[in-house]
Amino acid sequence: MRVLVLSGPNLNLLGTREPERYGTTTLSALEAMVREHAGALGIEITWMQSNHEGELIDAIQAMPGRHDAAIINLGGYTHTSIAIRDALLAVRPAFVEVHLTNLFVREAARHHSVSGDLALGVLTGFGPRGYLLALDALAAQLAS
Amino acid sequence: MRVLVLSGPNLNLLGTREPERYGTTTLSALEAMVREHAGALGIEITWMQSNHEGELIDAIQAMPGRHDAAIINLGGYTHTSIAIRDALLAVRPAFVEVHLTNLFVREAARHHSVSGDLALGVLTGFGPRGYLLALDALAAQLAS
Amino acid sequence: MRVLVLSGPNLNLLGTREPERYGTTTLSALEAMVREHAGALGIEITWMQSNHEGELIDAIQAMPGRHDAAIINLGGYTHTSIAIRDALLAVRPAFVEVHLTNLFVREAARHHSVSGDLALGVLTGFGPRGYLLALDALAAQLAS
Amino acid sequence: MRVLVLSGPNLNLLGTREPERYGTTTLSALEAMVREHAGALGIEITWMQSNHEGELIDAIQAMPGRHDAAIINLGGYTHTSIAIRDALLAVRPAFVEVHLTNLFVREAARHHSVSGDLALGVLTGFGPRGYLLALDALAAQLAS
Amino acid sequence: MRVLVLSGPNLNLLGTREPERYGTTTLSALEAMVREHAGALGIEITWMQSNHEGELIDAIQAMPGRHDAAIINLGGYTHTSIAIRDALLAVRPAFVEVHLTNLFVREAARHHSVSGDLALGVLTGFGPRGYLLALDALAAQLAS
Amino acid sequence: MRVLVLSGPNLNLLGTREPERYGTTTLSALEAMVREHAGALGIEITWMQSNHEGELIDAIQAMPGRHDAAIINLGGYTHTSIAIRDALLAVRPAFVEVHLTNLFVREAARHHSVSGDLALGVLTGFGPRGYLLALDALAAQLAS
Amino acid sequence: MRVLVLSGPNLNLLGTREPERYGTTTLSALEAMVREHAGALGIEITWMQSNHEGELIDAIQAMPGRHDAAIINLGGYTHTSIAIRDALLAVRPAFVEVHLTNLFVREAARHHSVSGDLALGVLTGFGPRGYLLALDALAAQLAS
Amino acid sequence: MRVLVLSGPNLNLLGTREPERYGTTTLSALEAMVREHAGALGIEITWMQSNHEGELIDAIQAMPGRHDAAIINLGGYTHTSIAIRDALLAVRPAFVEVHLTNLFVREAARHHSVSGDLALGVLTGFGPRGYLLALDALAAQLAS
Amino acid sequence: MRVLVLSGPNLNLLGTREPERYGTTTLSALEAMVREHAGALGIEITWMQSNHEGELIDAIQAMPGRHDAAIINLGGYTHTSIAIRDALLAVRPAFVEVHLTNLFVREAARHHSVSGDLALGVLTGFGPRGYLLALDALAAQLAS
Amino acid sequence: MRVLVLSGPNLNLLGTREPERYGTTTLSALEAMVREHAGALGIEITWMQSNHEGELIDAIQAMPGRHDAAIINLGGYTHTSIAIRDALLAVRPAFVEVHLTNLFVREAARHHSVSGDLALGVLTGFGPRGYLLALDALAAQLAS
Amino acid sequence: MRVLVLSGPNLNLLGTREPERYGTTTLSALEAMVREHAGALGIEITWMQSNHEGELIDAIQAMPGRHDAAIINLGGYTHTSIAIRDALLAVRPAFVEVHLTNLFVREAARHHSVSGDLALGVLTGFGPRGYLLALDALAAQLAS
Amino acid sequence: MRVLVLSGPNLNLLGTREPERYGTTTLSALEAMVREHAGALGIEITWMQSNHEGELIDAIQAMPGRHDAAIINLGGYTHTSIAIRDALLAVRPAFVEVHLTNLFVREAARHHSVSGDLALGVLTGFGPRGYLLALDALAAQLAS
Repeated sequence: MRVLVLSGPNLNLLGTREPERYGTTTLSALEAMVREHAGALGIEITWMQSNHEGELIDAIQAMPGRHDAAIINLGGYTHTSIAIRDALLAVRPAFVEVHLTNLFVREAARHHSVSGDLALGVLTGFGPRGYLLALDALAAQLAS
Repeated sequence: MRVLVLSGPNLNLLGTREPERYGTTTLSALEAMVREHAGALGIEITWMQSNHEGELIDAIQAMPGRHDAAIINLGGYTHTSIAIRDALLAVRPAFVEVHLTNLFVREAARHHSVSGDLALGVLTGFGPRGYLLALDALAAQLAS
Repeated sequence: MRVLVLSGPNLNLLGTREPERYGTTTLSALEAMVREHAGALGIEITWMQSNHEGELIDAIQAMPGRHDAAIINLGGYTHTSIAIRDALLAVRPAFVEVHLTNLFVREAARHHSVSGDLALGVLTGFGPRGYLLALDALAAQLAS
Repeated sequence: MRVLVLSGPNLNLLGTREPERYGTTTLSALEAMVREHAGALGIEITWMQSNHEGELIDAIQAMPGRHDAAIINLGGYTHTSIAIRDALLAVRPAFVEVHLTNLFVREAARHHSVSGDLALGVLTGFGPRGYLLALDALAAQLAS
Repeated sequence: MRVLVLSGPNLNLLGTREPERYGTTTLSALEAMVREHAGALGIEITWMQSNHEGELIDAIQAMPGRHDAAIINLGGYTHTSIAIRDALLAVRPAFVEVHLTNLFVREAARHHSVSGDLALGVLTGFGPRGYLLALDALAAQLAS
Repeated sequence: MRVLVLSGPNLNLLGTREPERYGTTTLSALEAMVREHAGALGIEITWMQSNHEGELIDAIQAMPGRHDAAIINLGGYTHTSIAIRDALLAVRPAFVEVHLTNLFVREAARHHSVSGDLALGVLTGFGPRGYLLALDALAAQLAS
Repeated sequence: MRVLVLSGPNLNLLGTREPERYGTTTLSALEAMVREHAGALGIEITWMQSNHEGELIDAIQAMPGRHDAAIINLGGYTHTSIAIRDALLAVRPAFVEVHLTNLFVREAARHHSVSGDLALGVLTGFGPRGYLLALDALAAQLAS
Repeated sequence: MRVLVLSGPNLNLLGTREPERYGTTTLSALEAMVREHAGALGIEITWMQSNHEGELIDAIQAMPGRHDAAIINLGGYTHTSIAIRDALLAVRPAFVEVHLTNLFVREAARHHSVSGDLALGVLTGFGPRGYLLALDALAAQLAS
Repeated sequence: MRVLVLSGPNLNLLGTREPERYGTTTLSALEAMVREHAGALGIEITWMQSNHEGELIDAIQAMPGRHDAAIINLGGYTHTSIAIRDALLAVRPAFVEVHLTNLFVREAARHHSVSGDLALGVLTGFGPRGYLLALDALAAQLAS
Repeated sequence: MRVLVLSGPNLNLLGTREPERYGTTTLSALEAMVREHAGALGIEITWMQSNHEGELIDAIQAMPGRHDAAIINLGGYTHTSIAIRDALLAVRPAFVEVHLTNLFVREAARHHSVSGDLALGVLTGFGPRGYLLALDALAAQLAS
Repeated sequence: MRVLVLSGPNLNLLGTREPERYGTTTLSALEAMVREHAGALGIEITWMQSNHEGELIDAIQAMPGRHDAAIINLGGYTHTSIAIRDALLAVRPAFVEVHLTNLFVREAARHHSVSGDLALGVLTGFGPRGYLLALDALAAQLAS
Repeated sequence: MRVLVLSGPNLNLLGTREPERYGTTTLSALEAMVREHAGALGIEITWMQSNHEGELIDAIQAMPGRHDAAIINLGGYTHTSIAIRDALLAVRPAFVEVHLTNLFVREAARHHSVSGDLALGVLTGFGPRGYLLALDALAAQLAS
């Protein structure tokens, strides 16, 4: 199983900024954790992060034939990008949506997700561990 | 670790009703799955389901000294019960909130959760597997 | 045909309180009227009233195999109980919703019904007679 | 007792259009059913249908001295016509409001009725049978 | 000066219905009062009442070349008819809007007027006398 | 008959500012017009203008025993002052509300009046002439 | 192919009123343009305009068997008439909706259309040419 | 005078939970304070607390003939329970509503009270002392 | 202890106006009651009433060094004056807010208080007695 | 005449994704259709598609001197991009807005267009043919 | 150049209250800073502060002929006073609006300004320095 | 001191487009003005403009270690980009927000700023001069 892990804007700053909210794990440390866990599950990981909405759309459009599923964290675009939603509607990938922090704790404008209803499931608030749980969920889901 | 798994109204009908939405796993089958998975993690489970708001409040109030954490699915009270929210605010248990179906797919009145912001994290849409992921999350969280 | 007549909170006070709004017929007088009319239609009546949301959920869950249809007046829970709605969604009984007073005359918060769209039909404003009309409607509906 | 049965716009198409929503009974078949049931109750029926808001207002204004009560289904004007509401406010006829389909199932703009709070009672969702129930209600109400 | 006095739905019932709200002056008595007052001001009156929205539109469209100004009371259409507003926008007659009762006392849906912003001025709450004041205003306005 | 003509904030600038909206009649010219017209009607005028909300409240409180009625134009306080509304509720004077410009043409925040529903009637859009019409209305009203 | 071109209230004034908004083409000139263009496409035109909501409903109800499609411009009823919407829902004609002016430029109350979602497509802002484009669209659509 | 002191959900945790918000007085200490103060006023106290909405309704329904007045703190049900409101509407007891914390400081969903408009008066923010003030108010009110 | 009792607009009319709502106690009678009760508690009273928003702000600003606490009833300014709120935010006096009538019974615009969340507590609906209860609360609060 | 045809995000997937909504015509097939039709009209086409908001802004900014008009379909940016709206406001190109599907059928968030009021006209719902109709409209418009 | 610096309610408390929000500069220290800076720019300052809405209106009305421009900070009236807005609309002075704290950080009710759209520009969040920047802006603006 | 001046979409068109709104100063002229003024203050300027949301995020992320502060004008992204807000939240640069035109004059959707509450202060409406005032503010702020 090939899984695209797609991270949106500002996730490249993970671990070095606002550690009281997002923790001290850096994005590369998170990538290492995910690759290790994926290896144990026999999952091949493609890792991508971008601050550009258009590049995220391009990446989703390129999924068919390359990836079987995705783990997606769209960052700030989660709440505003109808264009990314349209890409997901067009490609309809199997994916799990992950948020490091608990969306329900954030301000009201961050409670809405343009992609949540298209996901197999949504995990919110578990920090970096959420990615590992998402891998477990994908592995089980696709095995069934 | 002792974990209370608390299920709210109508979850006793699981598996026999609306299987196209909630699947065919019954509540007792779910309990068996959870107990088996918890056993492997060395977690002791207390299992409770009630259709009565007051009983759910009583159960949450009784947690201190008996349970280290909880997995909570409040069913229809998720969206309306300030009284249950107050119980959680008073006791402040460590808990994971689980929803079998993806809340983001349901109608708008079901997008709001009175308890989501008090949880360690929320899992929505993974079906019965969500309970197992929640156990993993609790085990890891409390081990850290 | 076996019909459950389910009455929600405060309907036990019928006839003795706010007679200018709800009339002077007591709940037991209403029960007698309903039983007499049902007898003439060959319908067997189960009569239940409760002030407890959880008991109303239990009663709805217990319908399959015991009752063919219901006449339901949820009182104050009509406007707030997603949990009772979920019970009706799970069991999907054939039922007629009855309100003694005309909902359209009441304040805005009472115009909404959590169960109205699940009913065969809704009768509002006919006082005790509404129950007899509901029996007629059920008899005809189930006969067709 | 003389009863005006007043039908609003598009009810003349009953039975031939959208039968999955409105059923296969035509308006003339409905009229026959109503006349037969009214005859058994000793009620004299005046039958009228119009697509024109002004004609419906004229008909309501003409009620005093000619009709003792009415059964009214305003069709699409139910939700928008303050002018028809004013006619009902001026004449204050005894009337029952009937809707063939269950208003609570329809879209939000159809939940509001400009006339519902002026009616003796409202029946919604019982199809053609609703007219017969309305006759029963009027007969009983006016007899009391 | 030729003035059209245009009255909308249900104003034909004036004086005989809801006298506690609209007073006991009938529409023909009002017409007589208006004609007498207009005669003293040298104004020629055309008097028209209709319950039909389309006829009110036709009447407004027919004004150019026949009437110099209008006194308009659209009744229930005051609050809903964009089509009549469009007729006034197309013809742009000089007119005064009159309401017998005080709009500010009525329910919120009656506070809005589709035509008020197109009028020379609006009089609300003065009963039949409002028409005489409107004539005075038109006479003075057009004389200036 | 003694009539208080009460003018609120900025009306002292009448005629010299924004003449395209409010016209070129000054407040003292308006006062002269009103006094002349009132003299012809046998009405005694007290004239007052203030930019201070508290002084307007004081003036309304002082009406009983001194004035039989009032003509009131509260300027910008029309839309915001619950305190002035309370003074009118306490004293309940007979009064006509006048606005020089047509409220319906102004922005939405100016459509609401805290006092309009307490007035005998409201005149809006007639410019200075509105005050003379208001005097006529008061004279006729109090004579009846 | 037989096409009904249905025009709603105030379109009879086209060309003579508000030319800065609606242009100088009269309705009869528009009819001539449409008939000529239709002739070239082999389309037979029925032309109708009415200010009366009920007549527009009657016309839509009469389409089956007489017309294959329609071009509809409901004027002011576009934004308010649920009754006309019901007629279109009942008859379900193939039709193109045309607006002379660009709805998106108009005030918010004119952005909504009761019929737009039932049309094959909507053209807004192209002036009289919109009718010719609508004919082209219908010809192509029905030919496919 | 016999007074029912009725406490809703989670008030049994008073003093041991969230002391920074609710203080350190336990419910039994509060009961002792109330009983002592009531004794000095010659008032007989019935003390009841429940987490169950239905039991609170039952208690209110049982008041007539047993209690002359009540002090009510509905906890989380204050903001949501139309069913409890209906019980108060049916029984119409003389009661004072007390909130330990200042409702105006809490989040918006807690500003609304389903029972506040039915109370003799409402005290909010005075902590345990609010109950003593409520007793004083009841004693004075019922003595007058 | 020195306490400022500050009364806002129209409270000077107390007892003589709208007695069915505000009772027959005049403001000077209320002052006498308050002074007598304060004397018994050893509290020194400064009494002030004003209809002017600015004077109320001045009075609040002058509190430091002169008064230890206040009892405040802002009348109509309760619902609108951000400027008075700012004065309270700047001075942060200990104060109790009192309303003679029950705010929850009044119209929605009167449910909001600009100062309620800054008060030690709020009393609403107890009439003149509310001032005495407020004195008791202040005496106890400041003694603790 | 030189026309820029500008397509926004996800339109590159046309024909291969969601064919039940967007049809089976690919973007290159659409381009061929447009180029052929434009050739017949003597129009020179520049074809551009991008998923990147910034590139669409760049393209609009580059229009002056290169293109006489545009046909624009902004995809998901239609509903959210104030930045693209600003580019259109700055450059003010003559353009027609086209949507393949009928916007009025889509969910509410897709009814709003940031650019619709700046267009010569808007075509919605005609599928690929909408582009050809837009070319016809531009040819006629620019010829007039 | 003569500049009026107009300060609204509670600004007289500057420096002594809520220093964590408003800083420790007193109003007289601010005045000295402004006078010194103005002197260097050759600007003559009139300094005024009032807690009274009416006095602020009076001051604005008195500007013509006395002042060439103003720096205005309306304090709490910024968000509520339509009457002050009307004074600015009548006099139309050149002015800069200054807020010591950043309005965007405050609660939503403080984001709105009744005067902001009438100002040359608005400065928010710069503390006392904002007044000096405003003087610079006025000097440059009026010099250009 | 090193200051990044960051300009968002369409600001590259400054001076050549919509000069009646944005003035005739080009972006390079503005840059020259800013560089000259900065030179006099001993500030080193980095100048950047982009139409691409992602590039603006990249630029903000790159600030630490390179720039001490920023002057930011996000153009159309001011009102919609949560992703840019997140970048500012992550990096937390000292910055002043500048808008050439007065936001309070623009339509409602432009009153909201995703970044305003994170700025030291906001200047709106001063045209190009706003940038010079922002430099002065930064110089003073960072010097203090």
